[in-house]
Amino acid sequence: MVELNESTRDEYMDYIIKAAMKNDIEQFRHLFLELHPADQADVFLHLEELERKRVYEFLSPEEFAEIFEGLEVDEQKNIALELNDHYAAEVFNNMYADDVADFLSELQQENVSDILKAMDDEDADDVRELLAYEEETAGAIMTKEFISIKAYDTVGDVIELLRQEGPDAETIYYLYVVDEKERLAGVTSIRDLITSISTEKIENIMSTRVVSVHEKTDQEEVAQLIQKYDFLAAPVVDDDNTLLGIVTVDDVLDVIEEEATEDLGEITAARGSTDVTLTSFQAAKKRAPWIIMLMFFGLVTAEVIGRFEETLETVVLLAAFIPMIMGSAGNTGTQSLAVSVRALATGSLEKRGLWKTIIREFSTGLMIGVMSGAVIALLLAIFYGDPLLGGIVGVSIVLSLGMASVIGTTIPLVINKLKLDPAIASGPFITTLNDLISLMIYFTVATSLIQYL
Amino acid sequence: MVELNESTRDEYMDYIIKAAMKNDIEQFRHLFLELHPADQADVFLHLEELERKRVYEFLSPEEFAEIFEGLEVDEQKNIALELNDHYAAEVFNNMYADDVADFLSELQQENVSDILKAMDDEDADDVRELLAYEEETAGAIMTKEFISIKAYDTVGDVIELLRQEGPDAETIYYLYVVDEKERLAGVTSIRDLITSISTEKIENIMSTRVVSVHEKTDQEEVAQLIQKYDFLAAPVVDDDNTLLGIVTVDDVLDVIEEEATEDLGEITAARGSTDVTLTSFQAAKKRAPWIIMLMFFGLVTAEVIGRFEETLETVVLLAAFIPMIMGSAGNTGTQSLAVSVRALATGSLEKRGLWKTIIREFSTGLMIGVMSGAVIALLLAIFYGDPLLGGIVGVSIVLSLGMASVIGTTIPLVINKLKLDPAIASGPFITTLNDLISLMIYFTVATSLIQYL
Repeated sequence: MVELNESTRDEYMDYIIKAAMKNDIEQFRHLFLELHPADQADVFLHLEELERKRVYEFLSPEEFAEIFEGLEVDEQKNIALELNDHYAAEVFNNMYADDVADFLSELQQENVSDILKAMDDEDADDVRELLAYEEETAGAIMTKEFISIKAYDTVGDVIELLRQEGPDAETIYYLYVVDEKERLAGVTSIRDLITSISTEKIENIMSTRVVSVHEKTDQEEVAQLIQKYDFLAAPVVDDDNTLLGIVTVDDVLDVIEEEATEDLGEITAARGSTDVTLTSFQAAKKRAPWIIMLMFFGLVTAEVIGRFEETLETVVLLAAFIPMIMGSAGNTGTQSLAVSVRALATGSLEKRGLWKTIIREFSTGLMIGVMSGAVIALLLAIFYGDPLLGGIVGVSIVLSLGMASVIGTTIPLVINKLKLDPAIASGPFITTLNDLISLMIYFTVATSLIQYL
Repeated sequence: MVELNESTRDEYMDYIIKAAMKNDIEQFRHLFLELHPADQADVFLHLEELERKRVYEFLSPEEFAEIFEGLEVDEQKNIALELNDHYAAEVFNNMYADDVADFLSELQQENVSDILKAMDDEDADDVRELLAYEEETAGAIMTKEFISIKAYDTVGDVIELLRQEGPDAETIYYLYVVDEKERLAGVTSIRDLITSISTEKIENIMSTRVVSVHEKTDQEEVAQLIQKYDFLAAPVVDDDNTLLGIVTVDDVLDVIEEEATEDLGEITAARGSTDVTLTSFQAAKKRAPWIIMLMFFGLVTAEVIGRFEETLETVVLLAAFIPMIMGSAGNTGTQSLAVSVRALATGSLEKRGLWKTIIREFSTGLMIGVMSGAVIALLLAIFYGDPLLGGIVGVSIVLSLGMASVIGTTIPLVINKLKLDPAIASGPFITTLNDLISLMIYFTVATSLIQYL
């Protein structure tokens, strides 16, 4: 297998393109198929339309299926339009059912039906089953291509089965044992197989207590489970413990990546738009509503400041510290938010308890507030020669930071507990809320002390 | 194997503790060892000191090593103090070298030497080798417990070898082939082995083009590679292509988690303090410096506002829109930051190019600016009956958002390119910078138009 990197790819691609354009099918197949499918997909994406057409001619649907699986859904959509119907159907038949389902879940309903009708019945049924699951559940990300064996099989039987079916299964490292009703009864591994004699019965080497996940379990929980136990796969079962499929560790890698992107998107109100393949306009369309919505909150803040216009007119200098106080509250709240989001993502919250976390964050916020409040009060007293102004700003910072840390911690946790839309817990919303509260604290403190200024 | 969850754990633990306190070693071992090591660690962490002492009595160092591997480094430090020297050394001998190295890298130098001296020479050498690597490189996270075979071995030889050494190796699914100088020459998998006859030579079934990583490769790149190719492991080599170790997919899961935490910590200036196990004071100590440093930037902002005191005194209402303009610029910049950080983390930037990304973000920022600027100008014209004020705020928003998106995108990319401390690219720093720039834009626009207000 040839490994490509940025520097070697271009040269290698030249050879491939030349072979394609000279219609040298043998040379093309030799060069192209020596690449790992992930690199084939990489090269393929760099081809022009005319060159891509040659790929469809020179590669069988089965060979092209591996490339197609390696593309992003947006890329798949464009490429699918270039394939003739029969070729496309064969490509889908040769893909893993979960990959087909991922692709179809992004299409219009009518296109989905057409594609499913063109596919082989058995393959189409698997895909339909996966499509029926709610997104981001174990059922939606599981693969149907797994090997199940029976407790009365011998090691020799199973090895023979692996010889035949191994190439089609997504993983052969764990072998799940089912009873006559397809209920999960045990698990064994290829490690156990090769250390046993071939006449040994599976029931004697299998472990009967299998860690499994329910079909409706959230994908993040599945990822945490696989990570906790260092598994390479986990079986997915229904209420009756019937084995429905397996989630493999490479799917979990994608889930963790996806959840990290989601978390970041939420914290930055850039949900669904951190993908660099979007055009400017697509990205702006997704992001502008957030910015405009947050701007309306900003108008509320403007309203609050307007109410204190009298105070401001008396001491215009007070305006100068608005950004600093708001900024500090915002930053502290965001730090607390990060703690909550990570705690939720890694499952460490359950280990530790909700209240303990909130109280810890509140004390942390207060401590940070006291430290920074003291520093700023001192600075203002010395450099502006105005200890009272220093006091006003300092006290406001202590109170604001204490509040901000509680808000930053609790909102995401409460949202999560109540199963509300987590977007409300996004960083900018929390920051905007903290802005508002810190401003009110600041002006209230200032107004009540202004007579002494 | 018994699987534990929050509800079953307490009851099961009661039985275990009762057995321990009744000195019923047999019952204790039966209950405890039936758990998966990850759950053993979970139960163990819930025990009191007296109960933990029984665990050390009842379990062999080899058995306890599996529990110790499952603990966080902070927990390991406390537990290590409870073990007698001989038991501890045996525990370390029985742990994977990479786990020992992870633990030792957090200790004082003198303690490290003592522990290494107490360990078996061969095991200690492996650990020393790993400790010599810079943190977060392939060398630092690789495992030394892998199986290497020779090209002239037969399939039967290798299966025999796996029977003997399989239990000690971290993974047996990929088998790396080395030449007489231990240089990586090929790879085969257990899948290939079982589908071949036992007299077949490895050289006939192995693939000679192996994807490997250099010992000094950054762990994030290793994770991307394993993810791209859906590998279960990747071999680590030195300049001479000598096989040094392997990185397994479960290590990669941890790396991705770790990098996501790091990214989030950077964006929120909560680096190294998102861990919920820290005490309030520890967290405050880590986070306060950031908040205080950012507060100093806030003072610069105060200074800028101070310079425009005259403008502000003329139209105090201008102060009311400071938070909104700053907030919008901050939010837009943070969105762009999220795009950059994700692009760096997933490697999609290389695929796409630096300039294309920056230009796309700039146009996105401008578009968002035009949309939100228009909305706000209209609102202010209608509700405040002041089209000029609307114009000032609207124009300031367009300019500020365009700038903010460029700054949010480029700073992390430039920092990354120049290999500077990425902390400078953290969200709050970028937001503070954007605050300052948007304020200057706002007051410059306002001052130049104030005569018409």
